Amino acid sequence: MFEAAEVGRKLSKKEFNAAEPELHHSLLSLQQKLRRSDHSLIIIVSGVEGAGKGEIVDRLNKWFDTRDVQTCAYWEQSEEEKQRPRMWRFWRDMPMRGNISIMFGSWYTRPIVDAAFGNISEAELDQELARIRDLERALTADGVIIVKLWFHLPKSEQKERLEQDAKINKFKKSPVLEDFSKRYDQFAKICERALRLTDGGTTPWHIIEATNYHYRDFATGKIIASRLESVFNSDESQQVATVSNTDSVLDAIEPQESAKITVLDRVDLTQSLTESDYSERLSELQKKLHGLAWLMNEKKRNAVLLFEGWDAAGKGSALRRVTAAIDARLYRVIPIAAPTDEEKGHHYLWRFWRHIPRAGRFTMYDRSWYGRVLVERVEGFASADEWQRSYAEINSFEEQLLDHGIILCKFWVHISKDEQLRRFKEREIDPRKKHKITDEDWRNREKWDDYKIAVNDMIAHTSTSRAPWTLVAGNDKKFARIQILETVSSQLEMLLED
Amino acid sequence: MFEAAEVGRKLSKKEFNAAEPELHHSLLSLQQKLRRSDHSLIIIVSGVEGAGKGEIVDRLNKWFDTRDVQTCAYWEQSEEEKQRPRMWRFWRDMPMRGNISIMFGSWYTRPIVDAAFGNISEAELDQELARIRDLERALTADGVIIVKLWFHLPKSEQKERLEQDAKINKFKKSPVLEDFSKRYDQFAKICERALRLTDGGTTPWHIIEATNYHYRDFATGKIIASRLESVFNSDESQQVATVSNTDSVLDAIEPQESAKITVLDRVDLTQSLTESDYSERLSELQKKLHGLAWLMNEKKRNAVLLFEGWDAAGKGSALRRVTAAIDARLYRVIPIAAPTDEEKGHHYLWRFWRHIPRAGRFTMYDRSWYGRVLVERVEGFASADEWQRSYAEINSFEEQLLDHGIILCKFWVHISKDEQLRRFKEREIDPRKKHKITDEDWRNREKWDDYKIAVNDMIAHTSTSRAPWTLVAGNDKKFARIQILETVSSQLEMLLED
Repeated sequence: MFEAAEVGRKLSKKEFNAAEPELHHSLLSLQQKLRRSDHSLIIIVSGVEGAGKGEIVDRLNKWFDTRDVQTCAYWEQSEEEKQRPRMWRFWRDMPMRGNISIMFGSWYTRPIVDAAFGNISEAELDQELARIRDLERALTADGVIIVKLWFHLPKSEQKERLEQDAKINKFKKSPVLEDFSKRYDQFAKICERALRLTDGGTTPWHIIEATNYHYRDFATGKIIASRLESVFNSDESQQVATVSNTDSVLDAIEPQESAKITVLDRVDLTQSLTESDYSERLSELQKKLHGLAWLMNEKKRNAVLLFEGWDAAGKGSALRRVTAAIDARLYRVIPIAAPTDEEKGHHYLWRFWRHIPRAGRFTMYDRSWYGRVLVERVEGFASADEWQRSYAEINSFEEQLLDHGIILCKFWVHISKDEQLRRFKEREIDPRKKHKITDEDWRNREKWDDYKIAVNDMIAHTSTSRAPWTLVAGNDKKFARIQILETVSSQLEMLLED
Repeated sequence: MFEAAEVGRKLSKKEFNAAEPELHHSLLSLQQKLRRSDHSLIIIVSGVEGAGKGEIVDRLNKWFDTRDVQTCAYWEQSEEEKQRPRMWRFWRDMPMRGNISIMFGSWYTRPIVDAAFGNISEAELDQELARIRDLERALTADGVIIVKLWFHLPKSEQKERLEQDAKINKFKKSPVLEDFSKRYDQFAKICERALRLTDGGTTPWHIIEATNYHYRDFATGKIIASRLESVFNSDESQQVATVSNTDSVLDAIEPQESAKITVLDRVDLTQSLTESDYSERLSELQKKLHGLAWLMNEKKRNAVLLFEGWDAAGKGSALRRVTAAIDARLYRVIPIAAPTDEEKGHHYLWRFWRHIPRAGRFTMYDRSWYGRVLVERVEGFASADEWQRSYAEINSFEEQLLDHGIILCKFWVHISKDEQLRRFKEREIDPRKKHKITDEDWRNREKWDDYKIAVNDMIAHTSTSRAPWTLVAGNDKKFARIQILETVSSQLEMLLED
């Protein structure tokens, strides 16, 4: 999840200054519209310590006409508040129609802190999160627009900032959060769960990379603006408000290339292997995997591997290197193409549920349920509402696999746009490969940037600590195959130990 | 919740035979429509042992054209099923568009059984229920119509049936459910929680009184028919499918008066007190309550009392008998009339949240948040979608009060329609009371039957073991006041003991 906010997005001061006046103006005019509407707006400002949430709140107060904006900070509960149910303090601060509440801290803080410090169990955390979803759903149904912002910093960046802060002002840190940097990993895991389980269709989370503060502030403003716009547009068209593309920070930030970096840009595509290193590693890993597959069978565990990637990225050939290692009785490969009539007649997850392996077996999906948020999103086969809500559906589906003890590996095989072109051309010449290249491949290639955004969003919403995505460096096929075999082997090895 | 299904609704054989052919015909033609639509239908048949679920499933198979109906029974998991996540077996049986699955047992069975036998905690039960809500929401969003039926029997009736069953066929009982009659109360509590937390706007529960089997079957058919109708109607009008009135079994059963009995009809309105008994009990109870209020204050607990009831039922005068007993510093009475501008500018629960008492105090609401599902429903001030979803919102709100340790008493003061007429006329004559009777009262009176249904549904959805409704026998004002004072005192007494 958070890796999509560690890619180095930034805006220079110059870029920010050039674009900011227009954004400011559009926020003001949207606020005017809000005043005359039946909606109110809650902006939840949350995220890691050190991300500059205070600065963001200040910025928002500068951007908006503050006559009908209230900023609510939630530190320790007052005596009055402690005597009532926990949500009372938030109900006190609910904005009236036409108004804006900026919530600095929110109903998420307490459950996350309690879980991070081990005061409540995972089931209790989930219970709290279910209540939050109910609350947000009730408010949304009543016309409240809730924009949930999570400001993220990489671990090293956060540490540095906290140390600097401590030098400047040793009183700044809030007491509850004091020893969080020590607990960064535990905290990140809990936050991820909280975000994932409350990442709803009408109340999605926006994870914003906060390292560069020009980018951070601009993205914040853009997200709020585009959310308000989409709500007002659906009001006018009398349709149910969906979130459309507003959850993509990338879409929101228009011209600046440096702000459009995605997780894919962080993959080092120069990595490669020599032929002899490759041969050696391949036979070594296949031998290991062969044994691990039988061990898995003996232990009655099951595994699901899924492969996504660009056209011509080498998914198929990498997959064959995996299956070559495993006894054919132990696996099934499910190629996902256009659904059958029967599959079309069901929920889109049904066709994947039916192939879940039994104990001791592998299912390998050559393309997968992620088609919903990739090709179906980009080609418009799924409506915005449909693919948006599928993040949560997919996360819930995968959680059920993991809870059952199924081992899950997810691969995106990445290549550069140039490399794809090279391979396409090669295929066109080679009579043995010519059938593999179609007009559709060329059409998909034209939408490269849209797919890139879709992949980035997919990682942001569905790469979790329990079911992380592996981004495979695919420009060198040998390197890619070894990376995949290594990942599968080490996952199996680790999970079969217990 | 279940008390609304213990009121003695029935149909005679003759009534059933007269009405059944039309119902059968309409189910068949709705099935035709379903075939041509993008929807599929899941009918979940659940409820207490002995309610005749098998007979219902047989009946449904007779009513529908069974070519595209599958009946799925969920007993013990097969070996195949155990090797996959728990939901896999249900995904296997998902109906294709145009088809019907009758699920005998369902995804609810295992969590309820596990919780009833203490194998999982309340938080874990809630976690499972949240997953079920996600599943149902995902399916519903995809066009699946889910009709959830819960067949209820009063405890004594169930016991009798199980004994009879055992005589006829000792192998009939399913092993999992074997000693449930012994655990009736524990089981009822868990079921109530499961139903309450999954009683969603688009997937409401229908609790059907199963004592009389003509009524039981007819109500089942009517509910399914009216649900299908409402979905097809919203399809035609291109609106989001809401549940409209279909959750009211009472609306579904048209002409037969014996089937229209509500919980209110079970209140014995002949109960009364003599003047001297009343005086004695009154002073006794007020003295006791005075002490309990101070004890509550000392223990830093808080209490919420709410009063609903017919016009002229005597809510106000009963409330005064309660406040007379309590030190004025300890309570506030909040009369609920038309909302202020500020209140209108918020979610409808906001105006009630703001008056939640602090520790050691009482808030008494003279009319309450239940206005949403009473006057607002009947008068059409709230849309069907709005009042339908408010059951869940109200339950969640009250649960937060209870979890905080707040003592909650809910009263519906009931009088007969004749008694109301008598009091209205009396008020018109009496110059001191004349101001209390308005045209609106007469207009409300015309909608008596609609209110009766609304009250019945309210009890069915919001009377829980932790926050039960007290139905007050109000024809004799003296009796009513004593009943209220007794309830408040005994609740306080019990809950201040801990």
